[in-house]
Amino acid sequence: MFKEIAHAIAQSENITILPHKSADGDCLGSAFALKLMLEYLGKNAVVQLEEVNTRICSILFGTIQNTQHTCETVIAVDCGDISRLGKRVDIFKHCQNTINIDHHDTNERYAKYNYVDVNAAATGEIIFELAEYMNIPITQQIANNIYTAISSDTGCFSYNSTTSKTYRIAAKLLETGINHAFINEVLFERNSISKIKLMGMAYNSFETFQDGKIAMVSITKQQALQSGAEEEEMGGLINIARSLDTAQVAISLRESTKENSVKIGFRSNSINVAEIAAELGGGGHIRASGCSIKGDIASVKQIVLKQVIKTL
Amino acid sequence: MFKEIAHAIAQSENITILPHKSADGDCLGSAFALKLMLEYLGKNAVVQLEEVNTRICSILFGTIQNTQHTCETVIAVDCGDISRLGKRVDIFKHCQNTINIDHHDTNERYAKYNYVDVNAAATGEIIFELAEYMNIPITQQIANNIYTAISSDTGCFSYNSTTSKTYRIAAKLLETGINHAFINEVLFERNSISKIKLMGMAYNSFETFQDGKIAMVSITKQQALQSGAEEEEMGGLINIARSLDTAQVAISLRESTKENSVKIGFRSNSINVAEIAAELGGGGHIRASGCSIKGDIASVKQIVLKQVIKTL
Repeated sequence: MFKEIAHAIAQSENITILPHKSADGDCLGSAFALKLMLEYLGKNAVVQLEEVNTRICSILFGTIQNTQHTCETVIAVDCGDISRLGKRVDIFKHCQNTINIDHHDTNERYAKYNYVDVNAAATGEIIFELAEYMNIPITQQIANNIYTAISSDTGCFSYNSTTSKTYRIAAKLLETGINHAFINEVLFERNSISKIKLMGMAYNSFETFQDGKIAMVSITKQQALQSGAEEEEMGGLINIARSLDTAQVAISLRESTKENSVKIGFRSNSINVAEIAAELGGGGHIRASGCSIKGDIASVKQIVLKQVIKTL
Repeated sequence: MFKEIAHAIAQSENITILPHKSADGDCLGSAFALKLMLEYLGKNAVVQLEEVNTRICSILFGTIQNTQHTCETVIAVDCGDISRLGKRVDIFKHCQNTINIDHHDTNERYAKYNYVDVNAAATGEIIFELAEYMNIPITQQIANNIYTAISSDTGCFSYNSTTSKTYRIAAKLLETGINHAFINEVLFERNSISKIKLMGMAYNSFETFQDGKIAMVSITKQQALQSGAEEEEMGGLINIARSLDTAQVAISLRESTKENSVKIGFRSNSINVAEIAAELGGGGHIRASGCSIKGDIASVKQIVLKQVIKTL
């Protein structure tokens, strides 16, 4: 399928790259690497974002101009589902040549040319292979962006999704002289003061049940507001509960700042938490799932605990 | 130098492997990989530890028998300085053939045969290369141990010390089918309840000075005792301060549980903290240093802050 994609690119002068909305490191790194690759081929390439983007963008990819232009080819990047293009879905629909480059196993193959590799640890891996296929030299800047993409989606090469191929690509990227330690620091080790406050609150809320088999953190509406943390910073608090060595199920509870409901996350390495979430009206994977329950945090906590204890 | 080491090994029947005291993941992984390699060669190989070892050992390397035996060759692993062999230094000194395999740039070449590669990200990298040199097949168990060593010393392949070679070795290790995600989870994501309590205390103590240019965490004697955390769990709290995006200098203060003094750590990406520590009677590297000051935490804090503010 690289052949058809390379052909569609060769035939186009103007190309628009569309990351999914609320774009993450893999999506952004892949998009900005692809832009540089297309520019090497002499194309007029533009990355069009849904939102004026975050911290990571300005530090790792430089100043981003969120321009719009007429194009003959549009490429959706790391986007499993066309609705994740948000307001930009019309750009995609009205273009003659549509390309979909992704690694999500739920990808709906919504484009004319779909390149979906569910074994790739990150979309960045596919972008690297596309560069090799098209004989585009991996410059330091392209390597910087692809490394960001891959490290971001693999938790710095720690997750199960990381393969021998992932490590081999990282080896090649490092040969361009990128400052990978800096990238990893920006991705994983830099927090705003709001996020640090929120983490402190989560640690304070830490509780265990059933002899440490259940670990829980919770954030009230008031705490969420008081911390000043943005929505995107609310993620990951469940890892505090997950880190307890005796925990079989980790739970996070977060009271909505907008309505009378609580967002619940579940993680486990041994118990099917998809079933637990389903019983509570939610869903997800067997190791990571979630749901949302109406009520305040105290009452929801009792409902959730009752359900989890049943399955232990 | 691999040649002389291989020869010394070939000539011996009984070999003792000595990790440094307070052995870390790199040291232990390297030692237990080497033991398996020597056993493949038909040797009677023993790892002799200073302490009956920790959590990581039993989970990742299986039950450890800390046996002692007479040997013709002794190999110190990941040990920059002979004094780090602790009580076992006599075993080393009384052996005919002594080997020193390490990657610390301060290594004192104290053995008959020294293999010190300061460009190796971990001693585990050298052990891998030794296996290749000696044509010893990398079994899944050897790969498990070497991956543990390397991932442990590189912060899961995130640090500056990680090279293209490091990633290429990881790629080969993964091909044996090891569960690398599990190893990384054990190394980096599992905490005791005491450690989680201690982290909560550190987050609560979080303070900033000079418009967020200085970030500090502190643990009092009472908190250290109350948390129940072991000495080895006290490390890493400075990363909370270090993670603040505006911080130029991160500081950790920890009151001794034994005497009237405070242990201080400094980290920076832009300021020479070796100088700061030296002014306060300590030492270290330009990016990571430390010192110890007599007094209670409140008075020491003022001394430290004054010194740091001067250098901003």
